[in-house]
Amino acid sequence: MVFHPKPITLSPRGHRLATGPASTMRAMFEQIMLDQYDPDKNPDGIPPEPSRPTNSATARHMNKHFHPHMPITERELLIANGVGPTCEMLGFCLFDPGEGLLMGRPIYQSFEEGFGTRAGVRAVWVGFPERVDQFAPECVGVYEEALRKAQEEGVVVRALLLCNPHNPLGRCYPKETIVALMRFCAMYGLHLVADEVYAVSVYEEEATFTSVISFDCSEYIAPQYVHVMYGLSKDFAAGGLRVGCLYTVNQELWMAMSAITMFVWSGAVDGIVATEILEDEEWLEGFFAESKKTLKSRFKLTKQLLRERDVGWYEGSCAGFFLWADFSRYLSSVGKEDFETEMRLFEKFVKSKVVIIPGGMLRCEEPGWFRIMFAQDGRILREGMKRVFQTLDELTESPAR
Amino acid sequence: MVFHPKPITLSPRGHRLATGPASTMRAMFEQIMLDQYDPDKNPDGIPPEPSRPTNSATARHMNKHFHPHMPITERELLIANGVGPTCEMLGFCLFDPGEGLLMGRPIYQSFEEGFGTRAGVRAVWVGFPERVDQFAPECVGVYEEALRKAQEEGVVVRALLLCNPHNPLGRCYPKETIVALMRFCAMYGLHLVADEVYAVSVYEEEATFTSVISFDCSEYIAPQYVHVMYGLSKDFAAGGLRVGCLYTVNQELWMAMSAITMFVWSGAVDGIVATEILEDEEWLEGFFAESKKTLKSRFKLTKQLLRERDVGWYEGSCAGFFLWADFSRYLSSVGKEDFETEMRLFEKFVKSKVVIIPGGMLRCEEPGWFRIMFAQDGRILREGMKRVFQTLDELTESPAR
Repeated sequence: MVFHPKPITLSPRGHRLATGPASTMRAMFEQIMLDQYDPDKNPDGIPPEPSRPTNSATARHMNKHFHPHMPITERELLIANGVGPTCEMLGFCLFDPGEGLLMGRPIYQSFEEGFGTRAGVRAVWVGFPERVDQFAPECVGVYEEALRKAQEEGVVVRALLLCNPHNPLGRCYPKETIVALMRFCAMYGLHLVADEVYAVSVYEEEATFTSVISFDCSEYIAPQYVHVMYGLSKDFAAGGLRVGCLYTVNQELWMAMSAITMFVWSGAVDGIVATEILEDEEWLEGFFAESKKTLKSRFKLTKQLLRERDVGWYEGSCAGFFLWADFSRYLSSVGKEDFETEMRLFEKFVKSKVVIIPGGMLRCEEPGWFRIMFAQDGRILREGMKRVFQTLDELTESPAR
Repeated sequence: MVFHPKPITLSPRGHRLATGPASTMRAMFEQIMLDQYDPDKNPDGIPPEPSRPTNSATARHMNKHFHPHMPITERELLIANGVGPTCEMLGFCLFDPGEGLLMGRPIYQSFEEGFGTRAGVRAVWVGFPERVDQFAPECVGVYEEALRKAQEEGVVVRALLLCNPHNPLGRCYPKETIVALMRFCAMYGLHLVADEVYAVSVYEEEATFTSVISFDCSEYIAPQYVHVMYGLSKDFAAGGLRVGCLYTVNQELWMAMSAITMFVWSGAVDGIVATEILEDEEWLEGFFAESKKTLKSRFKLTKQLLRERDVGWYEGSCAGFFLWADFSRYLSSVGKEDFETEMRLFEKFVKSKVVIIPGGMLRCEEPGWFRIMFAQDGRILREGMKRVFQTLDELTESPAR
């Protein structure tokens, strides 16, 4: 392939990966494998490369559920051992160490780890004032402010992470917000990295998930700056299957990734099982319908249990496995209203044998919020919530003990 | 656990991983999981953590074939998605970027990639003069010279890689050499990282594989500086199964790794299949016997085919899937006797539809050596060697064309 002598979309580190010996060696071996045997046209060729059934099955699934503007082909999908390793790979290819990734708060903690721990990407946190809805186009102004502040501090910002449907807030971004964010990214030369792992877990009928690839974005941003991460762990309730994927049309990125994909190969048997599941579309339709129905019912149950105890939650959740609940008024029974106290409250929950993740771990700005994972058997959910409230009751009966 | 406030065995980067938030969060969740349900002793506990059958099956396999001085327990094994990712993980925990790893030449190219590409470990190459047998204790002097030279250049060297049985040379290190290398590592505070993925693929009856953990090393080196990498891809001819492992008793290293293991989780179904295979010891005995017999016969066939054409090879191979053959006298038919010419010869082989890896890719010091992978069906092996010699014949008939 023709490769530009200077990096255009990649960071210097990514460019070195794309043009270094590991990548060129892979390219050479791939070239060898392309000389495929054909009884008539190429009788001296190499026996056919094993086909990539996981790629094509994943492409078919995404073509059905993401409604892509252009059909996804298997060659545009990289299958990896999960979304975490995919974040890492993007971290290494799109960023140099210390360069920044814009992320709204709160957000699933694994992004910070995936991009940050080994690839050294710096999280540039974007906190939204109460008057701004972070799912509305007006969010762009807040991202822009955070970007400017980071730039003033000398941080090169390379990308914006869009978690859609959102973890932990459970909401979907409407198209106009996605478009506004695309324009914003284009204006500042940022990549738009979309995590869409809860795409099929939208349980409210009136809600709509809009993938970043569901419309022609080229009017707003160059398509090689848009990347989608997906995987089987959430929508398929299959966390043990290490099968994630990256969709990108960025050829420079593909070259850079070719130097490191051997570290994120998905296991062969996991791939076979994933393919079997993905190909059984009839069974999957039933599974997804049942899954959405169950999620909706558990969401309703959790809200009901919280309402009984006058605990508030973040309104508007329609997707995902969780509810974002506000226990802040209980903090004063434990200590000061800060994150240290929130952590102590978390430890009290753990002591009562119930785990709900404190907002501080998800980079929430206000202490007292917790993420309740409701994708559970109803009895387990009720028992868990009972333990939560027992813990809180004990606190309010004998505060600060 | 008690954790030392200052790094002792890890690099500063590894120490940050060991003491950072990701690691402490994992430790906290592990603590939660340890509160296990027991109907009598702990009725309020958490339902038992899924057992780790792949760990225990791998431990049993290694206890049988590595003859460890102390039995390996499942808690001392980290199961990962292959040996490459294990190299990366060690690279991140034991080294800071730019720090050095001593590696003899030639050597399997994936170590340089595994430690170097993302973790940024610098390969400190050790070339052996003809008078020195790199498998004899005398090799230590050459390693020492390379270490001193690297130190003079300001490179901090952290570890020595021992590839045993050796890829591509196919030889096993005798115990006295391993002991000498342990003493050397201890003297300079280096880790000894042993890749032992061909442990069970020793096909010559008179040859013996000696694992670094097969004797009490504490007399020579602190055991927390000795680490073993293993996996199913070679001995089990199961490259598609992404199941590798690391054996280490270094608790600091375990803490550091806990911050990044989620990026190298092995797939659940790959793990189940691997466990099934590992547990069927009766079948495995037959498989290993057949495998060794076949390897020996292919090795013999390859030598015979080379002998017929008066091509030499590295003597003493007794393990692994390859033979190290000397085609250097053909280089002059292609061009100068250098690595560029070797690469052109490789390309001519590829054009003739046969792939044998040129020594330059494996960091050999002399051009003209190639690694012949003989673990093939006999007919394929014969056909491949026929193509090799046809290519060479065409060259010598019409040189430098």
